[in-house]
Amino acid sequence: MRKINKILVANRGEIALRVMRTAKEMGIKTVAVYSEADRNALHVRFADEAVCVGGPKSNESYLRGDVIIQVCKDLGVDAIHPGYGFLSENAGFAKASQEAGIVFIGPSPEAIDLMGSKLAAKAAVAKYNIPMVPGTEEAITDVEAAKEIATQVGFPILIKASAGGGGKGMRVVESVEVFEEQMQLAVSEATSAFGDGSVFIEKYIGSPRHIEIQVLGDTHGNIVHLFERECSIQRRHQKVIEEAPSSVLTPALREEMGRNAVNVAKACDYVGAGTVEFLLDENMNFYFLEMNTRLQVEHPVTEQITGLDLVKEQILIAEGNPLRFKQKDLQINGHALELRVYAEDPANNFLPDIGTLETYKRPQGLGVRVDDGFEQGMEIPIYYDPMIAKLVTFGKDRKEAIDKMLRAIAEYQITGIETTLPFGSYVLQHEAFVSGNFDTKFIERYFTPEALEVKPDEETNQIAVALAAMLMNKQKPAKADVTEAKQVNSNWRRNRTL
Amino acid sequence: MRKINKILVANRGEIALRVMRTAKEMGIKTVAVYSEADRNALHVRFADEAVCVGGPKSNESYLRGDVIIQVCKDLGVDAIHPGYGFLSENAGFAKASQEAGIVFIGPSPEAIDLMGSKLAAKAAVAKYNIPMVPGTEEAITDVEAAKEIATQVGFPILIKASAGGGGKGMRVVESVEVFEEQMQLAVSEATSAFGDGSVFIEKYIGSPRHIEIQVLGDTHGNIVHLFERECSIQRRHQKVIEEAPSSVLTPALREEMGRNAVNVAKACDYVGAGTVEFLLDENMNFYFLEMNTRLQVEHPVTEQITGLDLVKEQILIAEGNPLRFKQKDLQINGHALELRVYAEDPANNFLPDIGTLETYKRPQGLGVRVDDGFEQGMEIPIYYDPMIAKLVTFGKDRKEAIDKMLRAIAEYQITGIETTLPFGSYVLQHEAFVSGNFDTKFIERYFTPEALEVKPDEETNQIAVALAAMLMNKQKPAKADVTEAKQVNSNWRRNRTL
Repeated sequence: MRKINKILVANRGEIALRVMRTAKEMGIKTVAVYSEADRNALHVRFADEAVCVGGPKSNESYLRGDVIIQVCKDLGVDAIHPGYGFLSENAGFAKASQEAGIVFIGPSPEAIDLMGSKLAAKAAVAKYNIPMVPGTEEAITDVEAAKEIATQVGFPILIKASAGGGGKGMRVVESVEVFEEQMQLAVSEATSAFGDGSVFIEKYIGSPRHIEIQVLGDTHGNIVHLFERECSIQRRHQKVIEEAPSSVLTPALREEMGRNAVNVAKACDYVGAGTVEFLLDENMNFYFLEMNTRLQVEHPVTEQITGLDLVKEQILIAEGNPLRFKQKDLQINGHALELRVYAEDPANNFLPDIGTLETYKRPQGLGVRVDDGFEQGMEIPIYYDPMIAKLVTFGKDRKEAIDKMLRAIAEYQITGIETTLPFGSYVLQHEAFVSGNFDTKFIERYFTPEALEVKPDEETNQIAVALAAMLMNKQKPAKADVTEAKQVNSNWRRNRTL
Repeated sequence: MRKINKILVANRGEIALRVMRTAKEMGIKTVAVYSEADRNALHVRFADEAVCVGGPKSNESYLRGDVIIQVCKDLGVDAIHPGYGFLSENAGFAKASQEAGIVFIGPSPEAIDLMGSKLAAKAAVAKYNIPMVPGTEEAITDVEAAKEIATQVGFPILIKASAGGGGKGMRVVESVEVFEEQMQLAVSEATSAFGDGSVFIEKYIGSPRHIEIQVLGDTHGNIVHLFERECSIQRRHQKVIEEAPSSVLTPALREEMGRNAVNVAKACDYVGAGTVEFLLDENMNFYFLEMNTRLQVEHPVTEQITGLDLVKEQILIAEGNPLRFKQKDLQINGHALELRVYAEDPANNFLPDIGTLETYKRPQGLGVRVDDGFEQGMEIPIYYDPMIAKLVTFGKDRKEAIDKMLRAIAEYQITGIETTLPFGSYVLQHEAFVSGNFDTKFIERYFTPEALEVKPDEETNQIAVALAAMLMNKQKPAKADVTEAKQVNSNWRRNRTL
């Protein structure tokens, strides 16, 4: 047990603020680090102390672990919270922190290392019989051996170049008849592209859902799961909309996936908050994908349905406290959604659209939470992830959470840059999303920029009708939800009836 | 069953916005009414339509039931939500709405009338054996009869002038020995003050808590309670801080008070959201005080612990839907607090301090909800209740809710007017509040304006020390949590170490 009195948050933007809010609630002093591009950022203002650690580029500032550890030493910092991204899954940084006598709020460097390697992670969890996408365990080039494995696995299968990545050198094979030909093509392509012809064979999951399980482990060997998050709505393999619980998991499947996630965490003696990612296929079979050894961007949806503050739990765990609850104490209350509000133009292939937040007014009210790091008038810097905010809504059930999200999107006022707000509105009204019948291919299947084209401007039409009615001295002005028109309307009305 | 398509909110400020947000989520069109003082108010901008109904004074605008009903007729409004205050407990207005064919979102005019009269209410609930403060049932002047009753009730007792009110003509009598003398004084005082010497005798509850139970009834005869709210922190007999659940109710007492509250609602065939108020004495005896036949200001704390949207339930009930849950489906999750942020100076006897919100930045983040009706730059009009906002926080337990409230108060930036924020901070850190050992006399007992006096300015001191350190070229600057100082600090630090 070691009481933490001062935390340095080695991050920026919404997650730095979010962590510092909880630290403040716990009576812990906070230190911000910032780059030259973030001098006026909210996390700098919020912290008790703030230190500029370098130039605007990440590798000049937020990735400078050595500098950050020096700041900790200088300012008497007890613990580092790495947030997500940047140094959060850097085992070397975690180790260096430990060696400097500073608590790293996260798992051990060994756990980070282990789960950072897909092959090592799979080997480590094997003894717990965690379901994995069936296929070759090692890269091969032998066509006959590969064909045998493919037949065992069952078609369709995926051939993946061992040296590839990010979708490069991948090939889907639908049936055994064309396997040999496709395999030979894949090997020769891989050889010419990467200088290495070896490939992996694995079962092709055509329409997967991305389901992840939040886990929490303490330093006393206790590990629980906090149910799932459904993160299937993605663009460029990055999540945009997340929710909890998933609309397709049965209580039995939830329990089974939860148990498996806890076992994955056990396999690496996991301490702190982590996430075990699975693919879920159309037949409700799930397969271990990887473990993220940090707090996820989308952790708020889990907080809303469990009533827990995950950062608080992280800090308590890092202090050496045992978990404050057992698995049986945890339950799901209600439903939560998160929309990542990116400074991107969804009508233009989600290209970043950075600039100044000329208007920036957050939605408020019951069931709405906005985690952000900006204020009106601020600029979105070009150097970092272009996320402006996480818009989180929650209600008694999924329908209520969706209704609240649509209202909150309508209430959110952002001008000066394009954002993913209209995209969110489109998805949340789409039949596939509303029915819960969607997977990671949602955007590919249903979304085109034209979907966001503004319908003939209702408001403008209404104003025109209202004005026409006034001119004709009719009794009822048309509705108008623009202030000016309302003022006109109502002045006119007042003069007439009151 | 009658689907509501368009709601007029006969109110202003935060409650008008709060109701319209839910209506919007339900796909219901909204109509705002406003006074000449509220032309630029947020509720006017938020509504689909808005109509000015008169001058700035309440009786020229928000109390003009006739005008408001005419607006409903003109604009095809289905239903009126009255909010709280103004016309919300006006049986005549509820009746006039009904007669105009407009749904009044609230109980029947008869129920409003019945519960509006203390004597009639007590008579109506008598058959359910609701505990009441023991005493005379009718006003008396006979000293001997009064003495007998006082002895039965048990001392201390309270003598209340029948014609008095608001604390006038009240006298606490500690023992039977001095009763006759005190009674005679009371009667003669009452005669000279009010021209009516008759008095009531009732048990004096010296240190009561104000505990109220939220109830919901539908048009099919189903009534449930949504647990209690503790509202004992009051200034001028008005609530300032509320919470749910109460820190002193046992599950058994909660159930008993809940059952009694449901019975009070049954006694008047209650429909919609209502609140049954009780006094709770030091020995955990509770006494029926009155029923408020409307949504309360403090309803959000109940929403946060039950996961329900009370306005949504009100609207569903008004449409004729049966309740969506039974008593056994309801449970308390976590703990919620509300601080009413008034434009008042707590250091100056809570006198209203209206003016312009020169700075107005709301706190954000997990477990924080702000219901308000203002934006930076707006003026708080002098014509109405000076409440700026309701700051609501919620967490896993009471401690967490308090910690979040203190953080949220610190984060709330309001300049240009004095507010009750520092008072909230004082109360939430006071040992009596933290321990749960308080009653309606909290302010009387523990609060003096001096309690808010700013301690020697830590920040300024820190800046001075930091600057001094710099001048002396020492190694470590003192902490400073003011941006400018931090910038100085950190530039200096950066130049030195990086």
